[in-house]
Amino acid sequence: MTAFLGTPSALGMSEDARFGLSRVVTLPGPFALDGGAVLAAVDIAYETYGTLNAERSNAVLICHALTGDHHVASDHPRTGKPGWWTRMVGPGQPVDPARHFIVCANVLGSCMGSSGPASVDPATGRPYAMRFPVITLRDMARAQALLMDHLGVRVLLAVVGGSMGGMQVLEWAATYPDRVRSAVVIASAARHSAQNIAFHEVGRQAIMADPNWREGEYYGPGDVPPTAGLAVARMAAHITYLSEAGLTEKFGRRLQARETKSFGFDADFQVESYLRHQGISFTDRFDANSYLYITRAMDYFDLAEEHGGRLANAFAGSATRFCLVSFDSDWLYPTSESRAIVHALNAAGAAASFVELSSPFGHDAFLLDVPELNRVVDGFLRAVAA
Amino acid sequence: MTAFLGTPSALGMSEDARFGLSRVVTLPGPFALDGGAVLAAVDIAYETYGTLNAERSNAVLICHALTGDHHVASDHPRTGKPGWWTRMVGPGQPVDPARHFIVCANVLGSCMGSSGPASVDPATGRPYAMRFPVITLRDMARAQALLMDHLGVRVLLAVVGGSMGGMQVLEWAATYPDRVRSAVVIASAARHSAQNIAFHEVGRQAIMADPNWREGEYYGPGDVPPTAGLAVARMAAHITYLSEAGLTEKFGRRLQARETKSFGFDADFQVESYLRHQGISFTDRFDANSYLYITRAMDYFDLAEEHGGRLANAFAGSATRFCLVSFDSDWLYPTSESRAIVHALNAAGAAASFVELSSPFGHDAFLLDVPELNRVVDGFLRAVAA
Repeated sequence: MTAFLGTPSALGMSEDARFGLSRVVTLPGPFALDGGAVLAAVDIAYETYGTLNAERSNAVLICHALTGDHHVASDHPRTGKPGWWTRMVGPGQPVDPARHFIVCANVLGSCMGSSGPASVDPATGRPYAMRFPVITLRDMARAQALLMDHLGVRVLLAVVGGSMGGMQVLEWAATYPDRVRSAVVIASAARHSAQNIAFHEVGRQAIMADPNWREGEYYGPGDVPPTAGLAVARMAAHITYLSEAGLTEKFGRRLQARETKSFGFDADFQVESYLRHQGISFTDRFDANSYLYITRAMDYFDLAEEHGGRLANAFAGSATRFCLVSFDSDWLYPTSESRAIVHALNAAGAAASFVELSSPFGHDAFLLDVPELNRVVDGFLRAVAA
Repeated sequence: MTAFLGTPSALGMSEDARFGLSRVVTLPGPFALDGGAVLAAVDIAYETYGTLNAERSNAVLICHALTGDHHVASDHPRTGKPGWWTRMVGPGQPVDPARHFIVCANVLGSCMGSSGPASVDPATGRPYAMRFPVITLRDMARAQALLMDHLGVRVLLAVVGGSMGGMQVLEWAATYPDRVRSAVVIASAARHSAQNIAFHEVGRQAIMADPNWREGEYYGPGDVPPTAGLAVARMAAHITYLSEAGLTEKFGRRLQARETKSFGFDADFQVESYLRHQGISFTDRFDANSYLYITRAMDYFDLAEEHGGRLANAFAGSATRFCLVSFDSDWLYPTSESRAIVHALNAAGAAASFVELSSPFGHDAFLLDVPELNRVVDGFLRAVAA
């Protein structure tokens, strides 16, 4: 069964690189999860750009971050906003539909069309809510691998992702080494640190403290979702995506339009107003339960632990070529985390290039205009394809 | 009118350095605030240790941080917990009741006995709640100055504080230069950065999103305070008090007593359980509205802005001797903030010594066992007294 989102189109690959082809596929199960649960089937929403060549050798999988979606390079069908990574993916960009068959899939557990807590449980006819099983980053990669089977792609030219996307790339390389010719891991880490877990836990507690959360049962008609808690969760997370210097440059201590302090509790400072807006607007596009599940998956992520406690084991004998990029102002997944991966790759004898780029934008730099990032990824992908 | 808290005792200075003398004094107004409001009178809860000498030259004021109280060196009368800075203040410590007359006052706006939003508004006979005026760090210092008048102390040998305590020290030095012989500013800053404001705004939004907050009107019989929101606020803030390395060393990715992941949403990781405990236990001892007011005061704090936009102006002609200490792992008030103060002191021709200490504990280091901090403060205070 295949349902369609966005612009319906004939089955088969789209020739229109500008708009992409957005679909949902139901992949038949049983789909066994790391946590022991089994899903009867999983829906995966995805979008493709470009054409798979006759040798089936030009496929590139783009993996999105925590709150992302599959509309990587085309306007979002509902909001009309441009794709979230048009700086990296699109005509003339390092990942180019003129040369690559590009696939981006909404991760398992999310709320943009793939199976997640807001999906209807076929066994009950009601939304899973918190009955959806807890998933892992590896489960996300497994679902993507099934999607690749469905699309007739056995070997990927590249798997590319930043932040949580980079974690999926690592899972791909570790789980399907013979299906990944190259792996691009940007602003990411091979495990969540105590501080990473701590920030996510604040977000989860903010959601669960919202009385509208109701143990996740807020999908009924007339129900109000826990937007207040989700907004606070997003605000806390958003701070971690930016650098202190970037925040200072962007906002400093500048006041809102009124020129003096209110001596009240309205948003006096621009940074307050900005954060409030980030929090509130997020609740329009994201499901609070999905936020719980995906942050949990990230916190559980520890690639070394999955491989006997030694990160190098995850890459033993790998023929995949790796490209790692970190940003000097990223304090969420700092350079030391990328360096730890590079050390493990070196220990495993895998081919790895690594660069720390300078940027004032903190973790978010991977999504922003950093020409050096594009040059690095473009050069790497061309070398792999050659 | 003087009310008593803790161990009642005769008026006059306590001879018992171990227990201190805890009181509340009502300072007659009108007390004009930076925001334009006027309080008819203010209550200030304070504790003293040691004896004022005949020359009245040995008084040391200790300023507490955001959620602190006046029980700096003695057991809390209600919880029985030891004073919050017994490592710095007490027999044999740098601030020693055998040599100093030590005063610590609960800040204006707090909830430990000084006037704040939970206090009864004499004009209405009901708690102020959000009708309490927004206060500033300078207002806090002004109230302390009135307390010093009340205690017969004109000139302080030293004003000492860490974090928000250090901000009060700076306000003292700038507002009452002829009353401050020396100023010890530890792990602090002369203004709140955009990132500092952002974290506080997350906390405020978490509190205000709690339906039990009810615009601050939760003091009535049967009312339930907004503990869930306050706990989330505390959790977010608590992360900023610790370093990433410190969290990793203390918790890493270690699991709770059960040895495997639950694949659920209970606290699997020790760091989750620790943070939840920090959040919940905080709500037993702190008032949510006070948290709003004091974080607001900190966010408003910008000593340069109060002095024509140039920090050096705050210290022009000052004869105060300054001692500044920062910690290399403190990312809340990093060394660069202390250095900016030192540059301003140098520009103003003020006497300043500055040291960055190495500690794995992040911002909280000023409260913890850092022998080098004690040596620095002890040496400085002895030199000043000599």
